[in-house]
Amino acid sequence: MLTDVVIGMSDGLTVPFALAAGLSGVISSTNLIIVAGLAEIAAGSIAMGLGGYLAGKTEIDHYNSELRREYDEVETVPHKEKEEVKEFFAHLGLSEEVQQQAMEEMTRDKEKWVDFMMRYELGLDKPDPSRARKSAFNIGISYIVGGIIPLSPYFFVQEGISGLKISAVITLICLFIFGYFKSKLTGVHPWGGALRVMLIGAAAAGCAFGVAKLIES
Amino acid sequence: MLTDVVIGMSDGLTVPFALAAGLSGVISSTNLIIVAGLAEIAAGSIAMGLGGYLAGKTEIDHYNSELRREYDEVETVPHKEKEEVKEFFAHLGLSEEVQQQAMEEMTRDKEKWVDFMMRYELGLDKPDPSRARKSAFNIGISYIVGGIIPLSPYFFVQEGISGLKISAVITLICLFIFGYFKSKLTGVHPWGGALRVMLIGAAAAGCAFGVAKLIES
Repeated sequence: MLTDVVIGMSDGLTVPFALAAGLSGVISSTNLIIVAGLAEIAAGSIAMGLGGYLAGKTEIDHYNSELRREYDEVETVPHKEKEEVKEFFAHLGLSEEVQQQAMEEMTRDKEKWVDFMMRYELGLDKPDPSRARKSAFNIGISYIVGGIIPLSPYFFVQEGISGLKISAVITLICLFIFGYFKSKLTGVHPWGGALRVMLIGAAAAGCAFGVAKLIES
Repeated sequence: MLTDVVIGMSDGLTVPFALAAGLSGVISSTNLIIVAGLAEIAAGSIAMGLGGYLAGKTEIDHYNSELRREYDEVETVPHKEKEEVKEFFAHLGLSEEVQQQAMEEMTRDKEKWVDFMMRYELGLDKPDPSRARKSAFNIGISYIVGGIIPLSPYFFVQEGISGLKISAVITLICLFIFGYFKSKLTGVHPWGGALRVMLIGAAAAGCAFGVAKLIES
């Protein structure tokens, strides 16, 4: 769940912020910036949320089709599958004798055997069926929450550029705090990680601003 | 590499398309739609590209810090680490005798031992150091290529709504073709997958259009 929130929030904070920043450079009406920002949040949250759902669904479909194939192969070509189990232990660097014994024990129970093949031959863990739905929801909501933050200042000012100044301060602080906790979770040096996340946001906004200015001139 | 292109392209096709669709409902100037669209592409490609880079870097840092910790533990608490190796084989369902033999063989060579712990206790594969850079580049470029497609019709028409009609046709066809190949790669039913990817794009655009209309009214 935390991964989903991290993905959704970091993109939600960054992209609507950068889009609004880009538009602030070329249009003064905050109304239009808000419309574009909210349209982006709607589009982004659906694309990412449904995208996450689809990815989860795909993972489940893929797992199930591979599972059927493995059960089939254990039935039709047991000799070949036994060889593959032995190869796994050989690859670990175990002696011929231990390879043989481990293979024999492993292939006695068909269910255990197939589970082993799924996990260690194919590297597939059994996916949680409700995970896809929850993941989609979490990513989508996190994108909306993240996106509202950089847009909020534009509701209270008249000029796009004034909105941008407040938005930049708020968003960069949020990205820094967010980057700090994200780095702690992933086991990276937290201050360095916080700085990196913040700089990505600043780079995206700067680039969007530059592109918008360039086209307008 | 294919994963990166798939990620970048699908978001690039979807989000700028949906944003432009949303704006088409409320502003007639295609010029402003193009500015917003290109600003979004700039922001999105940097956020996703650098985001991908950061994720890759984080993975490498995490791997290296865990590697150091494992070497340390093998040195300082070998008894405990040996127990963990044995537990792995026990968890596979092997007999006490084979567990013991496998553990003894595995822990003879320190490098092999640590590699084993990294891979099977922690589930970490050695990341490719140049992967992070390439991944960032591929995702960023794919996002730009994907994003240019739905925006291109707006360059040739005067009215936002006319641009939207052509953009919708082109983008939905692209999403369908793209979804077809993406599904083939991930082992999902290709026609169903193609339809799903296309519907996500349509949903994102519809929602952005609705949100923009709602705020304007």
